[in-house]
Amino acid sequence: MSGNSFGNIFTLTSFGESHGKAIGGIIDGCPAGINIDYEFIQSELNRRKPGQSALTTSRNESDKIEFLSGIFNGKSLGTPIGFVVWNKEKRSEDYSNIKDIYRPSHADFTYEKKYGIRDYRGGGRSSARETIARVVAGALAKLVLINFDIKVKAYVRQIGNIEIDKDYSISELENIEENILKCPDETKSEEMQKLIIDTKNNGDSLGGIIHCVIEGMPVGIGEPVFNKLHAVLGKAMLSINAVKGIEFGSGFKAANMYGSEHNDAFFVTENKIKTKTNFSGGIQGGISNGEPVYFNVAFKPTASITGKQSTVNKNKEVVEMKIAGRHDPCVLPRAVPIVESMAAMVILDFLLLQNAYKF
Amino acid sequence: MSGNSFGNIFTLTSFGESHGKAIGGIIDGCPAGINIDYEFIQSELNRRKPGQSALTTSRNESDKIEFLSGIFNGKSLGTPIGFVVWNKEKRSEDYSNIKDIYRPSHADFTYEKKYGIRDYRGGGRSSARETIARVVAGALAKLVLINFDIKVKAYVRQIGNIEIDKDYSISELENIEENILKCPDETKSEEMQKLIIDTKNNGDSLGGIIHCVIEGMPVGIGEPVFNKLHAVLGKAMLSINAVKGIEFGSGFKAANMYGSEHNDAFFVTENKIKTKTNFSGGIQGGISNGEPVYFNVAFKPTASITGKQSTVNKNKEVVEMKIAGRHDPCVLPRAVPIVESMAAMVILDFLLLQNAYKF
Amino acid sequence: MSGNSFGNIFTLTSFGESHGKAIGGIIDGCPAGINIDYEFIQSELNRRKPGQSALTTSRNESDKIEFLSGIFNGKSLGTPIGFVVWNKEKRSEDYSNIKDIYRPSHADFTYEKKYGIRDYRGGGRSSARETIARVVAGALAKLVLINFDIKVKAYVRQIGNIEIDKDYSISELENIEENILKCPDETKSEEMQKLIIDTKNNGDSLGGIIHCVIEGMPVGIGEPVFNKLHAVLGKAMLSINAVKGIEFGSGFKAANMYGSEHNDAFFVTENKIKTKTNFSGGIQGGISNGEPVYFNVAFKPTASITGKQSTVNKNKEVVEMKIAGRHDPCVLPRAVPIVESMAAMVILDFLLLQNAYKF
Amino acid sequence: MSGNSFGNIFTLTSFGESHGKAIGGIIDGCPAGINIDYEFIQSELNRRKPGQSALTTSRNESDKIEFLSGIFNGKSLGTPIGFVVWNKEKRSEDYSNIKDIYRPSHADFTYEKKYGIRDYRGGGRSSARETIARVVAGALAKLVLINFDIKVKAYVRQIGNIEIDKDYSISELENIEENILKCPDETKSEEMQKLIIDTKNNGDSLGGIIHCVIEGMPVGIGEPVFNKLHAVLGKAMLSINAVKGIEFGSGFKAANMYGSEHNDAFFVTENKIKTKTNFSGGIQGGISNGEPVYFNVAFKPTASITGKQSTVNKNKEVVEMKIAGRHDPCVLPRAVPIVESMAAMVILDFLLLQNAYKF
Repeated sequence: MSGNSFGNIFTLTSFGESHGKAIGGIIDGCPAGINIDYEFIQSELNRRKPGQSALTTSRNESDKIEFLSGIFNGKSLGTPIGFVVWNKEKRSEDYSNIKDIYRPSHADFTYEKKYGIRDYRGGGRSSARETIARVVAGALAKLVLINFDIKVKAYVRQIGNIEIDKDYSISELENIEENILKCPDETKSEEMQKLIIDTKNNGDSLGGIIHCVIEGMPVGIGEPVFNKLHAVLGKAMLSINAVKGIEFGSGFKAANMYGSEHNDAFFVTENKIKTKTNFSGGIQGGISNGEPVYFNVAFKPTASITGKQSTVNKNKEVVEMKIAGRHDPCVLPRAVPIVESMAAMVILDFLLLQNAYKF
Repeated sequence: MSGNSFGNIFTLTSFGESHGKAIGGIIDGCPAGINIDYEFIQSELNRRKPGQSALTTSRNESDKIEFLSGIFNGKSLGTPIGFVVWNKEKRSEDYSNIKDIYRPSHADFTYEKKYGIRDYRGGGRSSARETIARVVAGALAKLVLINFDIKVKAYVRQIGNIEIDKDYSISELENIEENILKCPDETKSEEMQKLIIDTKNNGDSLGGIIHCVIEGMPVGIGEPVFNKLHAVLGKAMLSINAVKGIEFGSGFKAANMYGSEHNDAFFVTENKIKTKTNFSGGIQGGISNGEPVYFNVAFKPTASITGKQSTVNKNKEVVEMKIAGRHDPCVLPRAVPIVESMAAMVILDFLLLQNAYKF
Repeated sequence: MSGNSFGNIFTLTSFGESHGKAIGGIIDGCPAGINIDYEFIQSELNRRKPGQSALTTSRNESDKIEFLSGIFNGKSLGTPIGFVVWNKEKRSEDYSNIKDIYRPSHADFTYEKKYGIRDYRGGGRSSARETIARVVAGALAKLVLINFDIKVKAYVRQIGNIEIDKDYSISELENIEENILKCPDETKSEEMQKLIIDTKNNGDSLGGIIHCVIEGMPVGIGEPVFNKLHAVLGKAMLSINAVKGIEFGSGFKAANMYGSEHNDAFFVTENKIKTKTNFSGGIQGGISNGEPVYFNVAFKPTASITGKQSTVNKNKEVVEMKIAGRHDPCVLPRAVPIVESMAAMVILDFLLLQNAYKF
Repeated sequence: MSGNSFGNIFTLTSFGESHGKAIGGIIDGCPAGINIDYEFIQSELNRRKPGQSALTTSRNESDKIEFLSGIFNGKSLGTPIGFVVWNKEKRSEDYSNIKDIYRPSHADFTYEKKYGIRDYRGGGRSSARETIARVVAGALAKLVLINFDIKVKAYVRQIGNIEIDKDYSISELENIEENILKCPDETKSEEMQKLIIDTKNNGDSLGGIIHCVIEGMPVGIGEPVFNKLHAVLGKAMLSINAVKGIEFGSGFKAANMYGSEHNDAFFVTENKIKTKTNFSGGIQGGISNGEPVYFNVAFKPTASITGKQSTVNKNKEVVEMKIAGRHDPCVLPRAVPIVESMAAMVILDFLLLQNAYKF
């Protein structure tokens, strides 16, 4: 309840500050007998790790996963899976000058006021480095979802004012990992990368939108009335650092549509009930209808910019500050596996619950 | 976990189908000694009840609240508060013709597949009539929040293609209840009302956006990393019928802003730390910063439209159908108190948790 | 979390004061499609209802169950099942004289201090009348458990100083309902009944022990390390009014046994692995091993005795008091179905969770 | 829900197998600003660690605590506290011969059947080595409880057939740690120690009873109706390895008492309401009444005995076996801090919840 656990049956509890000893977590409720594909899990971590390209922070962390329990002879035991990723390249001295300062649009002020104490080094617990644990759990969830033929894939849809106006299906995203920005439209990707580099050189930062699609969904996943599938997916996404909004299917555009346009007509094909359109985003009444589930997640621009900023300190004095440390000018490329991970965890958790009733 | 409970300390568990005996719920964890202002609670129910105006469904329900427990001599006992609202004007016969039919963009198909059985009368549990329980619990939460000087207020911001482009503060919303549409801009309200009536006459329906603002927030509310304030508010809103999206503060616009624009600069006034702008929407790192919390909630157009539609039935046959029953051409006017109620419950629940640590 | 919900997947949330309008609850997570055998549910309520015999309180309540939701055409919908049992024969005036008095070994003092307010009529929420909701949910759980061939049965093992020294299996308990005391040993039952009547006539009360046995358990039920099967069963039993202790299998006798005596040797019969003895009580490492699960539950004597007692009131004055109202001289006969109900709920809840992992 | 988390506000999630890399956990919801007394925490671990004396297993583990997060400058941050204790002296080869064998009254059979896979080395997750995490969390809970002047203390009351018939108060237990058996009666302690050594030499094992007392309890702790203070304490205790029963206050003796004997009369002293006797065990209606809370916990004899035993293996063949490895002939001396730890966690968790309502 205190905020560091996620899920009901398949659960992640995570810990770790940006410049503490380690980031880690415990995955409880993972089905037993799952083949733990270490290489896959590490590759997922590599997708979010820093220092991948000029687009990301230069903090150099290998982010190697170390499992401490719950696995035996390469298979999950059904017992809790403890894991750590050690923080190696800590440069805590970078932060000594902001010890008493509240950086604008960071969580320095709110953590200090909430807890009466904070680890100011790299944002402490509020750092997106925390999401390492999510990616590990998400990778595991994906390994379980293979058994259900469910696939979760995300990509960058918008950076600043450059956006692609198409929804990609998973079959169209096969080569996405070759793109360092994780954007499936190569021309737009080039433009976006240029925009990021230019913005970084200006000491500024950018936001954007990530699109996520889930295919292979069975009908019947989600728990009305409060734990509707999109409600829990929404919570999952909004819990990711820098996220400001989420929309499912037609999303905000639905506000400006007529019911006659928006309704997804049912039809039958190959003896299966399908819908002709999918404004519902694969969810009706909070329950999956078998169509692809898809949604957009809006990210704000990174709060850490390198220019001079005016702010206040602990003593309520106005101060001028410059943020040192190493930061991403735009978090989206690294956020793609985080979005997928949270989605995979949600889907698996609901799937197991639905499974409970099959007898 | 099975979806009909909400909250951790202050909790609502609800029950009820649209055409069953009653809608009701149990509020557990309500602080003891709260004065139960029945008139206020009923007035909140009246704000969402059907048959209020030409803009809403003509189903005629008085929606009188009946409390069954947890209250003694007008005060809350600290024990669970059970309550019911009896379903009076049921016209279940309206639904016999859709018994085996899956209405487009309704939850008929998904409920049937999930549970293997469904109450087809008026959508059963998937009906927005379920939200009665939310409004009762929300009204109680508001009665508790008075003790903390926290105010929650929502209004209609957009209907179809008509929108107001201003964020209202609570002091500007004093007369909002006099407006049957719950829109603070009178000119726009007139236009919206006309649009709704016209659309209804065309047998069609409309979506829109509700804006909600919470003022008087103390600093420190919200539980990182998974139960960030906006994550849980987001889940709460997305669990309301017909909601397709939510955005906090700058929201989706943040995707297209630079960090230098988006950062909310801190300053000091009257010995308090405030921010000059509030793109953060009153939340930083998932914790309230004392500024107003505000967000937009997007609603899809009502799935029930009166024109002829093609769909399929249980036997996978294509059928033509017309929806009978009584329906809102646009759910937004009645959804305003529901949005407020969910917000009030979330805020109170987090507030109590934060309170746990004061010693 | 606030104490009025029980279970994780199959859950009961209950409400109601002894002399309020009603006792009721919401069962969430009940599998869909279960035949709701109203007669059976009512018969379970009848087993715990007051006024059954000279052994029980003379409060005359029919305790008729009324379901409000979650059932359609005689089957469970998978949606929450709301229900009430109306309090009919309230004689609240019986309690006006104890309004400000703390009855010895009752919860008057603790409720008042915890909540700052209490419903003094018949103990309010602390009354065992609350267990009506448990019996309804337990009856439903039993209806589901039929599908798994799991049987739960309890009986009176000890009243005051009279006890039976044998563990009965379910096949030996077939006629137990014909015995008004629910004690399978007829001779002992006679003695116990005489003891209860004599004690009642003396204005005093008695405690005792209920024994419960669960047969047909599959192997693998229970969730180490904190939610071991006996840990959750233990919590369930200790939450019943007047319970002071619980022991599984060998129980407290285990303290005085050698490992060589206590170990349950495995053997194979009819191609199944069984144990020769069952000191483990059917549970090893917190997980069912397929042998019968059995346990003893100790009840204290009813706190309400009719003789004069010295106590204190709100103003910290010493007062002499006599308890009016109608009370059971011994709660055990009526507690038998309550013990079974709690056990059935626990087993079903764990069974569903274990089921979640079958794929 | 999957069994490895405990608590609602102050929570422990634990991981680790006996012969895996480490035992560890995450404490979430610890109040911020608590001085982390490392020495105290280590001393608590030392109380449960193996190899302390001839009475315990000779497995030689230093059991040094390593904190990974949640602490800054010696104080808790309010963020999750991750920790590990590395398994050093693993002799997994001791277990290769029991790889396919189900040891009597161990969890080998049930884990294998539940999960379809198990770590056979030292019992894997079912080993009492798991309780390291409980002691760490319990030590932290005790550090917080200091702020409330609440003390939790346990001692050995019975080993085999030797028992002390007195309830000790905490002031009488000051020197208990000097006794290697944690028994406050020196004469009985000598006898018990001799019994343990003799039994060990016979290749056998012993059970016993631990008594726990909690003093300084405020009135009002515990959450009826399902989360009564003793219900949750009971679950906590029953979740400890080898526990077979628990009783509060009068416990099983209550079954054989009259109400007129058992009722705890209220009186007033120093302007405080107290009870003359305390058969209630400090709890009435599931809520603490300010008197000491006390209870007995029954432990079965260690399942690992060194003599030859007949059992079955995976292939359902009868086999003769001898248990190698290093084992405690009696777990009670080392279980004392575990009992205290679980009690401290429960009390703190409820205390924080009760605190939530003070405004």
